[in-house]
Amino acid sequence: MAGGQSTRLWPLSDKNLIPVMGKPLIRHQLEGLAKFGFQDIIVVGNQPVVDFLAGSGLASKAGPCYTHIIKQSSQLTGMAGAILSAQKIYESKYKERSLYIVIANDFFESKLQSDMLSAWQTNKGDAYIAAYQVKAYRPQGYLLLEGDRIKNIVEKPDPDKMPSKWANLGLYIYRQPPLLFAELKKEQAKDVKTDDVYERAMSNLMPTQNFQKVEYPRESVILKYPWHLLDVMELFLENIKQTNIDKTVQVSPKATIKGNVMIEKGVKILEGAVVSGPAYIGPNTIIANNALVRSSAIGADCEIGFGTEIARSYVGDKCRLHTNYIGDSVLEGNNDFGAGAVTANFRFDEGNIFSVVKGEKIDTQRTKLGAIIGRGAKVGVNASLMPGVKINALLVIKPGSIQNQDLKS
Amino acid sequence: MAGGQSTRLWPLSDKNLIPVMGKPLIRHQLEGLAKFGFQDIIVVGNQPVVDFLAGSGLASKAGPCYTHIIKQSSQLTGMAGAILSAQKIYESKYKERSLYIVIANDFFESKLQSDMLSAWQTNKGDAYIAAYQVKAYRPQGYLLLEGDRIKNIVEKPDPDKMPSKWANLGLYIYRQPPLLFAELKKEQAKDVKTDDVYERAMSNLMPTQNFQKVEYPRESVILKYPWHLLDVMELFLENIKQTNIDKTVQVSPKATIKGNVMIEKGVKILEGAVVSGPAYIGPNTIIANNALVRSSAIGADCEIGFGTEIARSYVGDKCRLHTNYIGDSVLEGNNDFGAGAVTANFRFDEGNIFSVVKGEKIDTQRTKLGAIIGRGAKVGVNASLMPGVKINALLVIKPGSIQNQDLKS
Amino acid sequence: MAGGQSTRLWPLSDKNLIPVMGKPLIRHQLEGLAKFGFQDIIVVGNQPVVDFLAGSGLASKAGPCYTHIIKQSSQLTGMAGAILSAQKIYESKYKERSLYIVIANDFFESKLQSDMLSAWQTNKGDAYIAAYQVKAYRPQGYLLLEGDRIKNIVEKPDPDKMPSKWANLGLYIYRQPPLLFAELKKEQAKDVKTDDVYERAMSNLMPTQNFQKVEYPRESVILKYPWHLLDVMELFLENIKQTNIDKTVQVSPKATIKGNVMIEKGVKILEGAVVSGPAYIGPNTIIANNALVRSSAIGADCEIGFGTEIARSYVGDKCRLHTNYIGDSVLEGNNDFGAGAVTANFRFDEGNIFSVVKGEKIDTQRTKLGAIIGRGAKVGVNASLMPGVKINALLVIKPGSIQNQDLKS
Repeated sequence: MAGGQSTRLWPLSDKNLIPVMGKPLIRHQLEGLAKFGFQDIIVVGNQPVVDFLAGSGLASKAGPCYTHIIKQSSQLTGMAGAILSAQKIYESKYKERSLYIVIANDFFESKLQSDMLSAWQTNKGDAYIAAYQVKAYRPQGYLLLEGDRIKNIVEKPDPDKMPSKWANLGLYIYRQPPLLFAELKKEQAKDVKTDDVYERAMSNLMPTQNFQKVEYPRESVILKYPWHLLDVMELFLENIKQTNIDKTVQVSPKATIKGNVMIEKGVKILEGAVVSGPAYIGPNTIIANNALVRSSAIGADCEIGFGTEIARSYVGDKCRLHTNYIGDSVLEGNNDFGAGAVTANFRFDEGNIFSVVKGEKIDTQRTKLGAIIGRGAKVGVNASLMPGVKINALLVIKPGSIQNQDLKS
Repeated sequence: MAGGQSTRLWPLSDKNLIPVMGKPLIRHQLEGLAKFGFQDIIVVGNQPVVDFLAGSGLASKAGPCYTHIIKQSSQLTGMAGAILSAQKIYESKYKERSLYIVIANDFFESKLQSDMLSAWQTNKGDAYIAAYQVKAYRPQGYLLLEGDRIKNIVEKPDPDKMPSKWANLGLYIYRQPPLLFAELKKEQAKDVKTDDVYERAMSNLMPTQNFQKVEYPRESVILKYPWHLLDVMELFLENIKQTNIDKTVQVSPKATIKGNVMIEKGVKILEGAVVSGPAYIGPNTIIANNALVRSSAIGADCEIGFGTEIARSYVGDKCRLHTNYIGDSVLEGNNDFGAGAVTANFRFDEGNIFSVVKGEKIDTQRTKLGAIIGRGAKVGVNASLMPGVKINALLVIKPGSIQNQDLKS
Repeated sequence: MAGGQSTRLWPLSDKNLIPVMGKPLIRHQLEGLAKFGFQDIIVVGNQPVVDFLAGSGLASKAGPCYTHIIKQSSQLTGMAGAILSAQKIYESKYKERSLYIVIANDFFESKLQSDMLSAWQTNKGDAYIAAYQVKAYRPQGYLLLEGDRIKNIVEKPDPDKMPSKWANLGLYIYRQPPLLFAELKKEQAKDVKTDDVYERAMSNLMPTQNFQKVEYPRESVILKYPWHLLDVMELFLENIKQTNIDKTVQVSPKATIKGNVMIEKGVKILEGAVVSGPAYIGPNTIIANNALVRSSAIGADCEIGFGTEIARSYVGDKCRLHTNYIGDSVLEGNNDFGAGAVTANFRFDEGNIFSVVKGEKIDTQRTKLGAIIGRGAKVGVNASLMPGVKINALLVIKPGSIQNQDLKS
């Protein structure tokens, strides 16, 4: 399921195509599936995803992988619409097969994928839903349980009417997809406006189908708002389990590399530079003298210039930095920073940082958040970007200015 | 003598309690006395000093140390009042003993203490006064001498009527304190308003008592204005005669430590960092990558972040710095500096830096002086603090602002 | 020929006296000639050049060197005037000798000098002119050729009427200077206002005299506008063919020196500093901790302070920098930069940088150009100097200010 509009992700572009560690997220998701042995994949995506995947091959550990790329119809919206978009191919090619439903902008540790498959292989359930225990109430779908069997799913209950602390995480297996398709069609016919068609269809099936809960110790990382890219990146960086430096990389003996890092071909790390893992450095990037990169992912062809610190940040391809402090920030790519420009990444009152998204003030739940900078935007010398500001693609921030509001144009 | 109000010390708090190298100044003074073998000490202090010392023990090299803590009465003001506050305890406990009078916010090399005691032990004087030769006239007490005997002390004479170039330094021994107490009472009864009661009492005694001069090669360091804390710190740092690094300290092989430094437990000094003595680093502080600390005292639990320079500065506990230049400055404690914020520490005309204290413009006698920052104040990214500015406790300096005047609120 | 006013060089002072790598340019030119064995040199200069050269000796590889210093008369302007100023000495001392004409503010690789001399020694020409092939038309003198013989020189032809792509480079040898003197006088008498008297005189001689072209593979570097000093510096730095570090230089083992560098006596290079050649460091300069100097020439007695980067820049004597970025800039000398002050050295649109000279907007032909700063100017903390700005001598730039126009007062 890789549809949707990414409008809440502004100033970043399509959520499925953002590259992390050298590959667009959709590619990571597909390769993750292939790694588990999936050979038959139906991608329901938006136009950019369809364009991107057209013609790109994939191999699973079990042999070649067949990927069907479908554009989600504007008639078939939401999760229900995405699943129904795949119905025709399923019926023509994969009849009798189980259906594993993955949402492309949800990210887990791969352990959960194993647990889902293992449950499906070893027990007698008809369907499987990944779930986690919430610490505090938030409006989402909660499970009514009888042991590990899910008897019902209650969408956004009143806080005092939660059927359990277990919330739906967004990963599903169905042994008999036709039953799901039928219920989805029925519910969709009733009322296409609400966005819980898929949950209602599951509810309908639960009395007669044995839905099993598969546990995950925490929430998934959902790429919904732009700052979530930092969480996604963190998850990927944590997956670097050992240091892997391409043999063409030039590292000065006076530079320091510590922790787990992945460093791609052609990278140069000059004297006095420090790369402190977990970290990823993309191909042909230069980490210049006395620069520091820590807990960050840097794209390809970047110049992380003299005396720059990048901390816990996502830096896309072709960024050029120079004596900057970039903390807890996202630079989508092709961003230049003049000397002395900095991101401020926490409030002196140590409170959560808020951000306005589509007119609504959102608590980012973060006490540390720098700037989110769209592709090709440039930041003048000695400019200051205040916590949580978002800068549109291609804009130029004036030298010496203090930017404390989102800048659209 | 540890009374007084510290009002000229704004934005810093009580002068006796400011910690230097891990201990409040009053504690340093008491330990200094104990080290010389003093076992019976009467502290006349203000309320904060009394509160701080309550219950704190002290051991002299001659065995346990008995400390009497007395709050200076608001009726008994100034030097004379402070001495008279100690009269009752002296008479009840130490009758017949000599009295050594030390002013808590005057700082000397310990050599002078030895010289005072040595004079008292070896010659026949009745009293001893530490003195130094002035280079240029300033209004203070000057000695009329006959050899080493002081025949009179002249308070603030006309410049052309100085009885000698020797000025009173503020350290005294009396063999017969009761004579002093009596003269103090007599003079105080005459006129309680002037602040030279103590000097007049000494004058009265000089014709009949043999007051001896004990020489010191320079002025003492008096903590009167907040920038004097830098001079006091310098004196303490000079006393670090060898490098002393706690065994729990982690120093990267790519970091540099040079000169005499004292580094407390739990400190981490990362790659590329330089600590150039004399310097003191308090417990659990981190000197991050490529930071430089020189001729400075850093408190406990600080983060001296990436690319920061601290030069000839006092940094209190729990300060967090990041790509800053802090030169000839005082950060009392709990101060955060955003990236790129700097102190300017000299005038381009190379003139002395002035500071307004209680409405009066004072020549600090310094060509290098940065900022004086009260406890808990925060400084925004890319802010500029101009030479000699003083910032009240808890204030927040706006990002990118130029602060060229004292900020009280 | 070392006359002229240097007015287009503002804010820099006399073009002949600017020191590069420890010596004024005029001295470099004279030593360059001496090195080729020239023993008889006539310098026609302006007053500062005359004052500077008075009494300074010179030795050629062939023995002592006789230098005649003549002030160019205000009556004899331009190239023609400069040559005529030398006529009297030539006639009284060097009759029958060839005349080699060098313009002091034109810079070549020494190979061209060899080629000129070699042509003069080996072939039968009457005169020699250095020339290069232009890539694109610019208004200058072009050669009409017959093989290597120059039949005419056409000053500023229409672009579609260029006699060839070969342009006059400004280096000449005459076997019979009296013929030249005569033509110069004749042309000057006609019309003293135009500035092509010299070219007309050459034209007159060409039908009867055999003028030979001597080829150079590129344009010369002419010090006309202040940013050209960077090109001149680059030429000198390229001539450092091996590393040469005075034995009194102190280099920390934690510092890095790479590429070809020349480092003069008394220099200190502290821990974490990097000097990346080609580079020149003048006597007694300090390259402080974690500073970076690359492709630059630094004068004597400078402090290149902590965390400063100097890239492709000319830094004169006695400059003090501190946590600055100086890129593609000229600091004439005695310049102080407060912490965090930076030069912006390229436009975000990657276009050429323009500069106003004597009221005219000039395309500097550079995409990278920082600031040009006159002697003794000071730049406040966190100030930003935008690409190409020029700052008059002795001015003070306010802290935190954005300087995007030339500043004269």
